[in-house]
Amino acid sequence: IENKSNTALLDLLGEVHYADIAEIVDELDLPEATYLIKLLDSDKTSDVLTELDEDVRERILKNLSNEEIAGELLELDTDDAADIIAELPEERVQEVISNIEDKEHAKDIVELLRYDENSAGGLMAKELVKVNENWNVLTCVKEMRAQAENVTRVHSIYVVDDDDKLKGRLSLKDLLTTSTKTQVSEVYIPKVDYVNVHDKAEDVAKVMSKYDLEAIPVIDEMGRLVGRITIDDIVDVIKEEAEKDYQLAAGITQEVEADDNIWQLTRARLPWLVLGLLGGLGSVFIMEGFEEALNEYKELFFFTPLIAAMAGNVGVQSSAIIVQGLANDVVKGSLLNRLLKEVGLSLINGSALAILVIIFGFFIDDIGLRFSLTIAVSMMSVIIVAALIGTFVPIILDKRGIDPAIATGPFITTSNDIFGIFLFFYLAKLILGF
Amino acid sequence: IENKSNTALLDLLGEVHYADIAEIVDELDLPEATYLIKLLDSDKTSDVLTELDEDVRERILKNLSNEEIAGELLELDTDDAADIIAELPEERVQEVISNIEDKEHAKDIVELLRYDENSAGGLMAKELVKVNENWNVLTCVKEMRAQAENVTRVHSIYVVDDDDKLKGRLSLKDLLTTSTKTQVSEVYIPKVDYVNVHDKAEDVAKVMSKYDLEAIPVIDEMGRLVGRITIDDIVDVIKEEAEKDYQLAAGITQEVEADDNIWQLTRARLPWLVLGLLGGLGSVFIMEGFEEALNEYKELFFFTPLIAAMAGNVGVQSSAIIVQGLANDVVKGSLLNRLLKEVGLSLINGSALAILVIIFGFFIDDIGLRFSLTIAVSMMSVIIVAALIGTFVPIILDKRGIDPAIATGPFITTSNDIFGIFLFFYLAKLILGF
Repeated sequence: IENKSNTALLDLLGEVHYADIAEIVDELDLPEATYLIKLLDSDKTSDVLTELDEDVRERILKNLSNEEIAGELLELDTDDAADIIAELPEERVQEVISNIEDKEHAKDIVELLRYDENSAGGLMAKELVKVNENWNVLTCVKEMRAQAENVTRVHSIYVVDDDDKLKGRLSLKDLLTTSTKTQVSEVYIPKVDYVNVHDKAEDVAKVMSKYDLEAIPVIDEMGRLVGRITIDDIVDVIKEEAEKDYQLAAGITQEVEADDNIWQLTRARLPWLVLGLLGGLGSVFIMEGFEEALNEYKELFFFTPLIAAMAGNVGVQSSAIIVQGLANDVVKGSLLNRLLKEVGLSLINGSALAILVIIFGFFIDDIGLRFSLTIAVSMMSVIIVAALIGTFVPIILDKRGIDPAIATGPFITTSNDIFGIFLFFYLAKLILGF
Repeated sequence: IENKSNTALLDLLGEVHYADIAEIVDELDLPEATYLIKLLDSDKTSDVLTELDEDVRERILKNLSNEEIAGELLELDTDDAADIIAELPEERVQEVISNIEDKEHAKDIVELLRYDENSAGGLMAKELVKVNENWNVLTCVKEMRAQAENVTRVHSIYVVDDDDKLKGRLSLKDLLTTSTKTQVSEVYIPKVDYVNVHDKAEDVAKVMSKYDLEAIPVIDEMGRLVGRITIDDIVDVIKEEAEKDYQLAAGITQEVEADDNIWQLTRARLPWLVLGLLGGLGSVFIMEGFEEALNEYKELFFFTPLIAAMAGNVGVQSSAIIVQGLANDVVKGSLLNRLLKEVGLSLINGSALAILVIIFGFFIDDIGLRFSLTIAVSMMSVIIVAALIGTFVPIILDKRGIDPAIATGPFITTSNDIFGIFLFFYLAKLILGF
């Protein structure tokens, strides 16, 4: 299809949704992709650009002139435009912006660039419909018609005062059923949910999904209405947040994907493996310390992978439950209660597993009951300690303002491995006395 | 506050959002919660009910009469009402439904109960605005006004033919700017995204977030418009899906939360720990098989937790990347390419780690270079095999229609532990010859 039969190609793609075109472009090699992007009309190209894979977009933008990029940005909502500009190399940002024809649009984009991308300011768009409380209904309707041209979906009409402070919202129904001379201040609804421009994206997502909102106004430190966040941006936040937590739990950083190249994947994976390796080498040292047990109780050493697995699994379970609980705000009550609960839970799980170990002991010739009991008791202690570490490390991190999700995965497995193996041998030594 | 000062309480809660009241009710004990629910007016109670924690709701519903529940359901959209009914014990369902006064509403709810809760049918609501293609604009507007009373947010106007088949959608703007005598068939937009009533909830979420839709119509096998799904339901689907995958990766089932009771938590966690225990006991057997190495190469046994940790970590990383890739549809290309990529990646990571092991060997007195090399080589082989298992088990599960997420977490760690330890000893035996 790529043999320059432009009109046929355009006809073919004319009816296709931009998200689907983006998928096609992702699959093409660079010259083909750039060619296709330039071929499409600006309206569609800009939408395709926002949907592209980040790596692909970066490479395509390199092949476009500043004027071409500025042209695309003009077609986009301010939030999408700002996201794309933020990916450009710094030296190009200014040139591209100075090429945007609509100066208002450029000013809005520049303002959005100021905010952290993980804040409400970074998510919001400047496009919204607002009316002054002192206007009458007739003026409102006229102004709204003009404003609505730039806004893809209206959702809500926000009411502000002369200082641009958010006062409330207006229902379309009320607007249409009251006399044209009524003042907005008499009919608007003063109750409106809003977020502050510096609120974290995560918290905005929580508020919007809790109250089932499809759009929320954003205000600055002075209470002025500065933007609006819509639900589709929040869907992306929720997905990214979930993927990040999932990857951290699996020991992967940097938001990699299955189709990234080998170097990107290595950078994301190797550091965590090194962490695991150091933990494993730590266990080697610990076991060397207990070497004297080899003569009489060599089976102890056969049980180390089991102990490490238990310590790791229990730690990951406990930390995952806490991390999710913290994210959903369901971790309440005192630390002491939580401690008692984890110990209780570990005792139940530990007892069940200990019984299995003792039963298993009967089937191995050279393991006596005393030895089985030693293993069972040590294992239970390891499980309790592992559960406590898994529970409290995330809580402590969270209290200090660190993302508790980093405490899941390799971090907790490795520390629990070392701790578990040491505790296991130490207790075995106390009981068996070697 | 609970001392029966009803009016003061009602005043206090009058202005509070139902989602916040639900949070308060979640915290109360049962008699208080039931009291509060009965106190609030039906309009608000029904919304509070939908937002409650499932366990709490179940207990409160037990304390309400069939008539009371039916009254609440009348206030709810059909999808929320069906969700609540689905939680009732079977013998009550029929009685509650027969108590719903509005027979149309009851019929809609019964229809929704037929669908699997994880399908488009289980997510959709019957409330929507539809017009017949043969109507003229005037009839449309009249009919729409009547229909819109039952619909919280209109989003889209769907166009159907005489057989109720979905034909397209109508833009509000076109409706208002054309003459009242124009037929709908002349102005409607025939292009509309839709999903089938039996599509999986996950797939609906993918379509809606890909195309940034805020609502999507649902059709049945005959192409008839049967319902509509809105974005807030999809937000819940995305969140639940993410939580489920996260919990599976951590070895937890049954969607538990940090504040569930000890028995629920035990049921969710113990089975996975038993799996891990069996794996650990398997390792014990394997090591007993290589017991003869103890005399000359006892350090091999000190390295088993390291090998198990490496095999586990690499396996979890590989599987997590694949599971996410499958969920986002980015796993493309042939299996052979993926195999080569994983092997390449493992060789790079493995080499780096092997060098660290050899360096480490110099610092331990009684480990010779030959021994260090043996460990390094065996470890690399284990890493490669672990990566391959981690990559291909999810792919195979996915091809057979099983959720690949179950292959992450304890399942992959346990099998990789056993496999890794066996391979490690086997290779060491070949190289060192004991």
